[in-house]
Amino acid sequence: MRIIRSATAMTAWSRKLQREGVVIGLVPTMGALHDGHRSLIRKARLSCDAVVVSLFVNPAQFGPKEDFARYPRPFKADAALCREEGVDVLFAPSHEAVYPPGFQTTVSAGALARRWEGARRPGHFDGVATVVAKLFGLVTPQVAFFGQKDFQQSVLVQRLVEDLNLGVRVVVCPTVRGEDGLALSSRNRYLTPAQRRSAPVLHEALQAGRTAILRGIRFGAQIDRAMQKVIQTDPKLRLDYLAVCDPETLEPLPRVTKTAVLLGAVRLGRLRLIDNLIVRLGGK
Amino acid sequence: MRIIRSATAMTAWSRKLQREGVVIGLVPTMGALHDGHRSLIRKARLSCDAVVVSLFVNPAQFGPKEDFARYPRPFKADAALCREEGVDVLFAPSHEAVYPPGFQTTVSAGALARRWEGARRPGHFDGVATVVAKLFGLVTPQVAFFGQKDFQQSVLVQRLVEDLNLGVRVVVCPTVRGEDGLALSSRNRYLTPAQRRSAPVLHEALQAGRTAILRGIRFGAQIDRAMQKVIQTDPKLRLDYLAVCDPETLEPLPRVTKTAVLLGAVRLGRLRLIDNLIVRLGGK
Repeated sequence: MRIIRSATAMTAWSRKLQREGVVIGLVPTMGALHDGHRSLIRKARLSCDAVVVSLFVNPAQFGPKEDFARYPRPFKADAALCREEGVDVLFAPSHEAVYPPGFQTTVSAGALARRWEGARRPGHFDGVATVVAKLFGLVTPQVAFFGQKDFQQSVLVQRLVEDLNLGVRVVVCPTVRGEDGLALSSRNRYLTPAQRRSAPVLHEALQAGRTAILRGIRFGAQIDRAMQKVIQTDPKLRLDYLAVCDPETLEPLPRVTKTAVLLGAVRLGRLRLIDNLIVRLGGK
Repeated sequence: MRIIRSATAMTAWSRKLQREGVVIGLVPTMGALHDGHRSLIRKARLSCDAVVVSLFVNPAQFGPKEDFARYPRPFKADAALCREEGVDVLFAPSHEAVYPPGFQTTVSAGALARRWEGARRPGHFDGVATVVAKLFGLVTPQVAFFGQKDFQQSVLVQRLVEDLNLGVRVVVCPTVRGEDGLALSSRNRYLTPAQRRSAPVLHEALQAGRTAILRGIRFGAQIDRAMQKVIQTDPKLRLDYLAVCDPETLEPLPRVTKTAVLLGAVRLGRLRLIDNLIVRLGGK
């Protein structure tokens, strides 16, 4: 496995392979890799000739009061996981390689970025859209792999690709969960044992929402209440939002008539957890 | 020559040729082609295997009070000029091909866009940056050709390419002028004969600035005055701005010590004319 740190070396590697007809898959990450990332890498391995994992903790997507400085950076373990999974290139650029002096052109996400995570984290999705556009430019993958756990991000990236004609196929892979249902996340390592026991309640709440829909409840407000009740069973969780949304626009659905996505976010101590479930009407 | 109107057909054409190693040059235009465009096309023909001219009057770069509706659209003459110059593809997308329903992700130009044209035309350069990024995504040229006449635009496009890692080489070609020095522009056709006689005074003013510098005047304010005096000789011209700037940052230079760009804009009736000159110290 090659570790590449410079933008020009990354681009040269990609362009050379692509002239030879090699299909490149990119798994963009902020490192602190877990089995969720591992599943993205495996998916990329199966469908592409060469796999690039990018590892860049992108300051532009952290708010001023967020955990950019504290974000975990276990580089050796990340590189070991990538090597284990047969990754061809670990692209771990420096800050200057991504944002050189004079950098000033950014991507602005649209209406999709205003709700949910975007409302709580101003500028977050512009930061995501900008760095994803840049990574796509540097690596020029034919396919890129994102986790469904960050559902709003995955919708937004698909929109970005379409709107700016980036020509990358975006594959969204199912959320990987612990045995108790908790969605894997790089930040889970910060949960205390007691918090860790409470954390799966978010997934349980979303499942209650799904059950309600599958039992015939169609009004968004009723489904919301079914989910909220589950969150309220654990006083450690403070509800941020729970919503039944259109999976493309992410607008709340007053009434569920077709596929919906249940979005949830809670606070647990200093941490925020997010999760989601897609509910297809007429099937599981 | 092929005329392509759909985004998917454009992309398919480009991708196919590029798999065969063909180097594609793009000349982005808003149509109403003149000899300035012709010189860009010829430059592209000389250095690329295939030439695409895009023709799209981009609403996003017009202000609400600007001339989007009135902008000239002589499609047949434009297509004839392209055919004459050996253009391979005239890409003339519909509004929906560029901005389909749901479009929402845009590019934001940075500090470079705030001064001069950007200050007078809010949103203009975000519109330019967005459509250029999109055209680059649709056509995926290796090289793109822009005219120096829109100097601020050309600097901004170079910044866009670098900042979003678009991987396109940007070639800026010299301004083509009438015999009296007036820079060619699609909007010149709206000048009355009397205005047309006054229009070259803008170029004369910039030349006076250049002469001043070459004669040893170094203070920006003095050079500004030398240029302003020329504008004042013609009461038809209303000065918008004249400035001696750093050619990369476009910030005004209090003192000229190396290459400078002289930027100018005047109003003439309902029209605005812009022009510029690069002055290299120690050379022509």
